[in-house]
Amino acid sequence: MAPLYKLTYFDGRGFAESARFLFKYGNIDFEDIRIKRQDWPKMKNSTPFGQVPVMEHNGKQICQSAAICRYLGKMVNLAGNNDWENLEIDSIVDTMNDLRMKIMLVQWEQDAVKKRELKDTVLEEIVPYYLARLEALVEKNKGNLAVGRLTWADLYFVSMSPGFDAFIGGDTFAAYPNLKLLRDKVETLPGIKEWIENRPNSDF
Amino acid sequence: MAPLYKLTYFDGRGFAESARFLFKYGNIDFEDIRIKRQDWPKMKNSTPFGQVPVMEHNGKQICQSAAICRYLGKMVNLAGNNDWENLEIDSIVDTMNDLRMKIMLVQWEQDAVKKRELKDTVLEEIVPYYLARLEALVEKNKGNLAVGRLTWADLYFVSMSPGFDAFIGGDTFAAYPNLKLLRDKVETLPGIKEWIENRPNSDF
Repeated sequence: MAPLYKLTYFDGRGFAESARFLFKYGNIDFEDIRIKRQDWPKMKNSTPFGQVPVMEHNGKQICQSAAICRYLGKMVNLAGNNDWENLEIDSIVDTMNDLRMKIMLVQWEQDAVKKRELKDTVLEEIVPYYLARLEALVEKNKGNLAVGRLTWADLYFVSMSPGFDAFIGGDTFAAYPNLKLLRDKVETLPGIKEWIENRPNSDF
Repeated sequence: MAPLYKLTYFDGRGFAESARFLFKYGNIDFEDIRIKRQDWPKMKNSTPFGQVPVMEHNGKQICQSAAICRYLGKMVNLAGNNDWENLEIDSIVDTMNDLRMKIMLVQWEQDAVKKRELKDTVLEEIVPYYLARLEALVEKNKGNLAVGRLTWADLYFVSMSPGFDAFIGGDTFAAYPNLKLLRDKVETLPGIKEWIENRPNSDF
């Protein structure tokens, strides 16, 4: 039978890897469609808002990676047990998205001098500010980012951590033992371990 | 009795007005705490991630406006009826956040020449691209952004529309009759109508 879900993105981890982690964790078959950069301009207008990842299900297309992961997280039993727990999970996921956005602003900066200044600020102030708070949260939540047990926020965070490492030029979590333990835990989960070993190589 | 919810933000609409709309729509008492810019540096570190709005409930603090609104939207019966409907709502909300971010990047640009270029691109290409798609969505969804009936995505969108108007220097929806009707509908909802008439004046 053809998979019930298709996930379309570029040939990279980027904004799609979190959804792939959730599909693999839940052992849910999906079609992992990877488009070539040169094919993107002619595909762009067929997506809901000119962006990928796009998930397709029952003939419907939907964009926005965090929204997709919230849906998949519920499906694979990694959501909260009540509305407040879901709020805690959602809050940490959007906090992660903020951190990623601050890093992307450095990558998008064209002026070399400004890029250097901005990168220094992000590396010396912003990243440590977030990581110290995340480290404390994980300690408080018994090795997880929220609600005292594994949720889709943990998979979301760990799936993007190689992107942080690439930006920093080293191990993002070197000075953060709880975050390292969280990463080790997620990366060895059934489904995810095999995926990391076998996933396509990519630059981003 | 003291309100069960506190919402802390600057003295402006900004990222908090969507939550205020939802409290008012649901007739839920909340404390609308507005901090002065000069008081922010000494408060910043007491917030979860150095950002407002922060919502307080049962002695717990939580940040991230979209996450807060998802929780409030559920509470006031403006969420989806199933997981896929919630995904459609979440997707459109994060799409709105993307549009707002693209506008904020213009506002943050310090270099006057680049700011002008970036503003032209956003005004001439990005804003019309989004608005045309949103207009079509609202037509398809019987006057709403998602799932064919009023949801918290509609209140979220309309609460931020004065910010779009300020950026554009005119009525954002002038050429988009369905978006205008949606705005009119939301702005005359019980609770929200009175709030808009009586809310504090602010520059943002």
